Amino acid sequence: MFDFQLSHRDATTGARRGVFVTPHGPVQTPGFMPVGTQGTVKGVTIDQVAATGAHMILGNTYHLALRPGHETVRRLGGLHAMSGWDGPILTDSGGFQVFSLDAINKVTEQQVTFRSHIDGAMIELTPEYSVEIQEALGSDVVMVLDHVVALPAEKEVVVDAMARSIRWAKRCLDAATRDDQARFAIVQGGLDTELRMQCARELSAMDFNGYAVGGLSVGEAPSEMYRITEATTPELPVEKPRYLMGVGRPIDLLESVARGIDLFDCVMPTRNGRNGFGFTDAGPIKLRNAVHREDTRPLEEDCPCIACRHSRGYLRHLFNAKEMLGPILLSIHNLTYYQRVMQGARDAIEQDRFAEYVADKKAGWGEA
Amino acid sequence: MFDFQLSHRDATTGARRGVFVTPHGPVQTPGFMPVGTQGTVKGVTIDQVAATGAHMILGNTYHLALRPGHETVRRLGGLHAMSGWDGPILTDSGGFQVFSLDAINKVTEQQVTFRSHIDGAMIELTPEYSVEIQEALGSDVVMVLDHVVALPAEKEVVVDAMARSIRWAKRCLDAATRDDQARFAIVQGGLDTELRMQCARELSAMDFNGYAVGGLSVGEAPSEMYRITEATTPELPVEKPRYLMGVGRPIDLLESVARGIDLFDCVMPTRNGRNGFGFTDAGPIKLRNAVHREDTRPLEEDCPCIACRHSRGYLRHLFNAKEMLGPILLSIHNLTYYQRVMQGARDAIEQDRFAEYVADKKAGWGEA
Repeated sequence: MFDFQLSHRDATTGARRGVFVTPHGPVQTPGFMPVGTQGTVKGVTIDQVAATGAHMILGNTYHLALRPGHETVRRLGGLHAMSGWDGPILTDSGGFQVFSLDAINKVTEQQVTFRSHIDGAMIELTPEYSVEIQEALGSDVVMVLDHVVALPAEKEVVVDAMARSIRWAKRCLDAATRDDQARFAIVQGGLDTELRMQCARELSAMDFNGYAVGGLSVGEAPSEMYRITEATTPELPVEKPRYLMGVGRPIDLLESVARGIDLFDCVMPTRNGRNGFGFTDAGPIKLRNAVHREDTRPLEEDCPCIACRHSRGYLRHLFNAKEMLGPILLSIHNLTYYQRVMQGARDAIEQDRFAEYVADKKAGWGEA
Repeated sequence: MFDFQLSHRDATTGARRGVFVTPHGPVQTPGFMPVGTQGTVKGVTIDQVAATGAHMILGNTYHLALRPGHETVRRLGGLHAMSGWDGPILTDSGGFQVFSLDAINKVTEQQVTFRSHIDGAMIELTPEYSVEIQEALGSDVVMVLDHVVALPAEKEVVVDAMARSIRWAKRCLDAATRDDQARFAIVQGGLDTELRMQCARELSAMDFNGYAVGGLSVGEAPSEMYRITEATTPELPVEKPRYLMGVGRPIDLLESVARGIDLFDCVMPTRNGRNGFGFTDAGPIKLRNAVHREDTRPLEEDCPCIACRHSRGYLRHLFNAKEMLGPILLSIHNLTYYQRVMQGARDAIEQDRFAEYVADKKAGWGEA
């Protein structure tokens, strides 16, 4: 049910071209998942998400369990029926949100305890409960609950969290009951390559459908992230999809694809879009700048998205006038841009010219 | 170029069925225009506006002249090209905005002087300048600058503003230079039927392409608005379109169609949509209410809009979670609802059953 077929491996990099099959359809890899934190990709309708070229979207266990509540989602037909997205959905486990929202949280061997950012209630999240929530949501891919730590951290702290993440991964696997959901483990280990490799090996010995690299993109230098990714992927099963969580900028996606990553998610295209930053092959454009005031050109000449039917001048006006349509259109453009970058990556891998593709993109972006 | 063809008049009411032809296409009447104050219908893409069934949209001279500036709009190709809406557009004159925004304003025979709500700059708006702005915007229908007064007001004040509105209408007509723009006059006269009738007669003697009833829906009782409309329309040329400005609730539209009005505009469908109020044949629904939490029904069973592909429970969640998609979807639903009410009105008029149609709708809405 969760077949992953690698159709081609790039001749000169670690990039892989594949298809990950789920009960709600195939995901072409390498692929980027738009983030639908609360059951919606912010500001974008389901039809518009599909039109960007996205195959799979991400939902957040933490947010949906708190609001509207996973039992409510279940009664509304599950996350697919509720949101109207009938393609593949991956749900994270809540581990990263508990960490990143900086809620008062306490981790024991049994569970993480945290305070709801909505009403302040104390909530206990065990690995088993995280799986139970994700089974109620009905996603295609369930992520294990992991223990994420802020970096940099003492090695002792990183080792402890890594070891716990492995034990929790096993508990998640044991707790899972649905046949129609894939389970992905999450590699932890901070910025220590040895720990990362050890964690990857231990998780690889368990029967997961895919493997994620977690706890990155939390403030470390991109080179550090690439180093860890490069050390981790060789320790993961070749025949399973690999997902780099919460990453990143377009260049981060390509650098990580070159290191063997297949899947990504990030809020950047929508968050930056809401803030007036548009991604283009010539680098990011700040739409609020006065230089765009009477610019009749679209953001990108060859972009098929609905934002690019308009002039930069109009988009600037929408942001200046605080019109919702500005964030809407720019979110759509940025999501489309990310999908186009990934489509280009897939094409390049098939033709064994991925390194050239990355070099071309980096030149356009003004990256060394 | 601005042909108005009345195809049928309802047998028992004053309702008229017609088509108003503009250089950007026909407008079926009676018709409702979504409001695109700042060059966008708030939260709704142009494709989505078209999908609601709207024929003509409205832009605001006051807002667009201040931001991005009408010369900027002109350089971006005019309001059609800039917004991407290639159907008919009507622009108001700025008179109502100066009145309603309660900017510090002073009216003389020559002009109205007001303070920009954006940067506080003092701006002088003459009838001629309002036309110049609207010519730069390139709308299909240009509204004359009128002198709107708050109601209730002393008769002397109302008479003075009415007389000035007539003189300003003439100045607008004299100032207009574009052949591809229709000019609509605006009847003023407060809540005094004699003044309204006099104003309508004087404006009817001038060569306008259409006539609006202005200065209503400013806090007076609906019955007062109906009374004024009923007294005014018989004094207007039968063969010209009639537009009731800034109105209103669905019931106000139908009651006014029965009194001979052809066109409407109002922010209510989008504003109420943004605030979580959905219009339905069973009356308005407040989506935030807890009763909708696990309601799997759409807002309206037979509505073709994209909001009605979702459950009420999901829409409620979006509003509770402050997700942009809530306002987006409910704005689309409400605009679709208004268009469906007007489509129903057009069908009913053609079949000489408009009174029955209004009675049915009112029964559903719980109106006496």
